[in-house]
Amino acid sequence: MTEMKENLLDWLRDAHAMEEQAEQMLRAQAKRIEHYPAVRQRIEQHLEETLGQQRLLKSSIERLGGSPSTAKDLMGRMMAFGQAAGGMTNSDEIVKGAISSYVFENLEIATYTALIAAAKAVGDIETQRVCEQILPQEQAMAQWVLEHLPQLTEEFLSRDAAPNVEAKR
Amino acid sequence: MTEMKENLLDWLRDAHAMEEQAEQMLRAQAKRIEHYPAVRQRIEQHLEETLGQQRLLKSSIERLGGSPSTAKDLMGRMMAFGQAAGGMTNSDEIVKGAISSYVFENLEIATYTALIAAAKAVGDIETQRVCEQILPQEQAMAQWVLEHLPQLTEEFLSRDAAPNVEAKR
Repeated sequence: MTEMKENLLDWLRDAHAMEEQAEQMLRAQAKRIEHYPAVRQRIEQHLEETLGQQRLLKSSIERLGGSPSTAKDLMGRMMAFGQAAGGMTNSDEIVKGAISSYVFENLEIATYTALIAAAKAVGDIETQRVCEQILPQEQAMAQWVLEHLPQLTEEFLSRDAAPNVEAKR
Repeated sequence: MTEMKENLLDWLRDAHAMEEQAEQMLRAQAKRIEHYPAVRQRIEQHLEETLGQQRLLKSSIERLGGSPSTAKDLMGRMMAFGQAAGGMTNSDEIVKGAISSYVFENLEIATYTALIAAAKAVGDIETQRVCEQILPQEQAMAQWVLEHLPQLTEEFLSRDAAPNVEAKR
């Protein structure tokens, strides 16, 4: 049981670091976006959710006797990707940014799916409950982005093809 | 229309580079996995699909007068993540590897969703058809991984907690 609990605690720490990276990415994206107000609004909504998720994860980590720390190896690399996604300024950044958001949300979905299974295996009902509360917020954000991606792509292409219209953000 | 076509061609090149990275990641993972045969088998199946996708994308790129090239900026970073995911050897690599596969599949899902919209906007029916053929393969792989993730997590935790049993791969 000790090994299981340690794995659970490690993964909760990874999740907390992931949500800190999510916060940075969302803040950077919301700040950059100018011509796509619906996207900015949805990002700002999810930023609020993300801050709540950080608090929930922190309390679970502390209840298990740990404290939040930086992410290790793979998660660290994934975070770096999130950081890059937040700082993008290429000519198609609105489309690539939406793709990155969707990808990052799916990292979160997989992380909480594994965490729920781990919390169940350990018998940590409170952590299970926390992760089951967070997961639908990530699913909703991922779904919103994917549903709006075709229209956003068309809008970007139209703006990009028009003379004297900024398209990228 | 020229700008639109150039965007489409750029994104097709990104997709081709992405599938080359997918191939490397899948090969590396299939080679490492020892104690989770169902996962290895599904990865090998998707590797075959990935090779077919590369051929389809290459023919679309060439039809538009281009040639495959390396990925740029964001996609390049995402590829690096895939490369890291393929080469992972941490203590929980089977779980982190499954999460990475799921994340990478979702990068592919978002990429083809945007590409389908772009092909429609340009009126390139053949590219649209190609991407609509590839997308369900990515969705099926992503769904398989997510559905099996809870059981895989439990299995990993049990093996990890047992004495003298290798759990990580």
